Amino acid sequence: MRFQEAKETVLQELDIVFASVDPVQVDQMAEMIIQAEKVFVCGVGRVLMMMQAFEKRLNHLGIDACYVGEINEPAITDKDVLIVASGSGESVVPVAIVKKAKQFNPKIIHIGSNPNSSMTPYEDLFVRIPCRTKLNLEDEIDSHQIMSSLFEQSVLLLADMTALLIADKKQITDLHALWRKHANIE
Amino acid sequence: MRFQEAKETVLQELDIVFASVDPVQVDQMAEMIIQAEKVFVCGVGRVLMMMQAFEKRLNHLGIDACYVGEINEPAITDKDVLIVASGSGESVVPVAIVKKAKQFNPKIIHIGSNPNSSMTPYEDLFVRIPCRTKLNLEDEIDSHQIMSSLFEQSVLLLADMTALLIADKKQITDLHALWRKHANIE
Amino acid sequence: MRFQEAKETVLQELDIVFASVDPVQVDQMAEMIIQAEKVFVCGVGRVLMMMQAFEKRLNHLGIDACYVGEINEPAITDKDVLIVASGSGESVVPVAIVKKAKQFNPKIIHIGSNPNSSMTPYEDLFVRIPCRTKLNLEDEIDSHQIMSSLFEQSVLLLADMTALLIADKKQITDLHALWRKHANIE
Amino acid sequence: MRFQEAKETVLQELDIVFASVDPVQVDQMAEMIIQAEKVFVCGVGRVLMMMQAFEKRLNHLGIDACYVGEINEPAITDKDVLIVASGSGESVVPVAIVKKAKQFNPKIIHIGSNPNSSMTPYEDLFVRIPCRTKLNLEDEIDSHQIMSSLFEQSVLLLADMTALLIADKKQITDLHALWRKHANIE
Repeated sequence: MRFQEAKETVLQELDIVFASVDPVQVDQMAEMIIQAEKVFVCGVGRVLMMMQAFEKRLNHLGIDACYVGEINEPAITDKDVLIVASGSGESVVPVAIVKKAKQFNPKIIHIGSNPNSSMTPYEDLFVRIPCRTKLNLEDEIDSHQIMSSLFEQSVLLLADMTALLIADKKQITDLHALWRKHANIE
Repeated sequence: MRFQEAKETVLQELDIVFASVDPVQVDQMAEMIIQAEKVFVCGVGRVLMMMQAFEKRLNHLGIDACYVGEINEPAITDKDVLIVASGSGESVVPVAIVKKAKQFNPKIIHIGSNPNSSMTPYEDLFVRIPCRTKLNLEDEIDSHQIMSSLFEQSVLLLADMTALLIADKKQITDLHALWRKHANIE
Repeated sequence: MRFQEAKETVLQELDIVFASVDPVQVDQMAEMIIQAEKVFVCGVGRVLMMMQAFEKRLNHLGIDACYVGEINEPAITDKDVLIVASGSGESVVPVAIVKKAKQFNPKIIHIGSNPNSSMTPYEDLFVRIPCRTKLNLEDEIDSHQIMSSLFEQSVLLLADMTALLIADKKQITDLHALWRKHANIE
Repeated sequence: MRFQEAKETVLQELDIVFASVDPVQVDQMAEMIIQAEKVFVCGVGRVLMMMQAFEKRLNHLGIDACYVGEINEPAITDKDVLIVASGSGESVVPVAIVKKAKQFNPKIIHIGSNPNSSMTPYEDLFVRIPCRTKLNLEDEIDSHQIMSSLFEQSVLLLADMTALLIADKKQITDLHALWRKHANIE
């Protein structure tokens, strides 16, 4: 396989996925994040890394965000939003966290592919990225990439698109000038 | 800003970036990874998260990989490869690590935008993703995204494209059947 | 409060705790770790940090160890040991992990204070550190320290004592010469 | 080796170490932490885990703390304190961070064993834990434990003793009632 082929596989699959993402769901997610007092993100494996990248960007935008399990994770309340990314919606730890969090009544957003998962009864908003996960549902977009790579890439890009919407809603215009909130000794 | 606009910004900028990535450099990186006894990845902030996602995928492919600073990080030797991602090539910690690592003589790969950085004298291979970083060099592709988002996205996609090349070189054909090396209690 | 007083509080409470730890339980834990193919550690918050320190030491001793959630976490099998530290035995995520892990039938060790917890039915070995946790059980040793500090300190010291037993059983004699398996570029 | 012997080794060595820690240095550290706007902690390996446990406890006490490299690490300023724990004072990454941080002029505290290290010129306060590290200096307390275990245990206990001093200075009296700032969905 030449690089050209690998490149086209990845970029074309992303084009197909994002043609199927519902703009209304993404806009609602951006609104809920802006309204929240604090944002908690959650996921496992590579998906968690993508959500941590989202968290870091949200903080740059002046939004108080952390991941579930972080050293300085505060208590969650009904003024907060919990965003869980899980393609199948069946990962053990995220499901356990969603159920526990529900006791404190935050808004719960699920980014995933499976619209009928164990998380569904707990969700306030489902943002669908309809691409192949472990479950390999019938209406999911198939992928020629390794394991769930396409879902993970889509989570990162969706997060960065959402960050652009948030910056716009918050009227932050100089997008290259947000380093003030950024670490200066790394 | 509507989602449609944010989506096009992200996907089009990625198309432009990858039109400028040199296939030979990526193929060399894939070869060096396959030849290595162990692979160490390094970066800071969101770039580190992307490299950790690369590390995780390499392990799925049967390649022994860790990040610098990981709990079980072993000693590096001259049979290993160290891959540092840093757009500017000037981040304090990665530069310190590259200099220290050089004493043990691993192959050093730098994924970045700046071809003349403090890391340059130590590199065996430079893989260029020529998009805007903190330095804002003249021949870098500009971005309408927040801070270095475009670089970070490009690092993830480059990593996943490289993973496809590696799977091909290692004749791993069933790309959805690599869960065997994957955590089963998350 | 003078430092002298803080010092005596901490050191005396540790003496009291370890007078109540059962040597047989600790020896059994050391044996089970040596017999295992791989060791998984689990906990939350400061307790997790102590278990990660245990994990790192086990690797120095040539034992393949990771924490649940780690980037390179492999699949667990019936040849492995899962060690969960939780004072109350009721932390949501550890309980969910123990239940999930049980499907793959590893040996399960619980380090905690509460002998009748949600984890009890799943445990192969309970190692008791009988000091005050959130539950504040009647037969627990009380503490004048902050929150569960005494439990967390005890977990670290117990881990390091267990490491000494393991080194002895494995006939590793030069305890200052284990840097070979240790990172050399940090 | 029986557990009894391992236990006595650990507990007695800790007694010897803390008999040599200077109360004035610890009190100064507690004062500097209280005066700081933010506290940054730094270290590598097991020492980093101990410092992260310190960080978590400081946050419980209402002190804004993070570790260098944390996702939400903010910019450091001259109103902040940087606490670096390194036995030898020669670890590559901490030394690089201390030098970089100095540009922003925070107070710098070094917890270590070696009073004449690469960090010494940058320190505002040196808190000595005089026990054997990699360098094995002449006036250090020797240890029969594995590698630098004694130093790492001492860092944790010193941190928790310092937390008691801080709680006292801040007149926080109910030490078991600090869970309000603590995660509730772990």
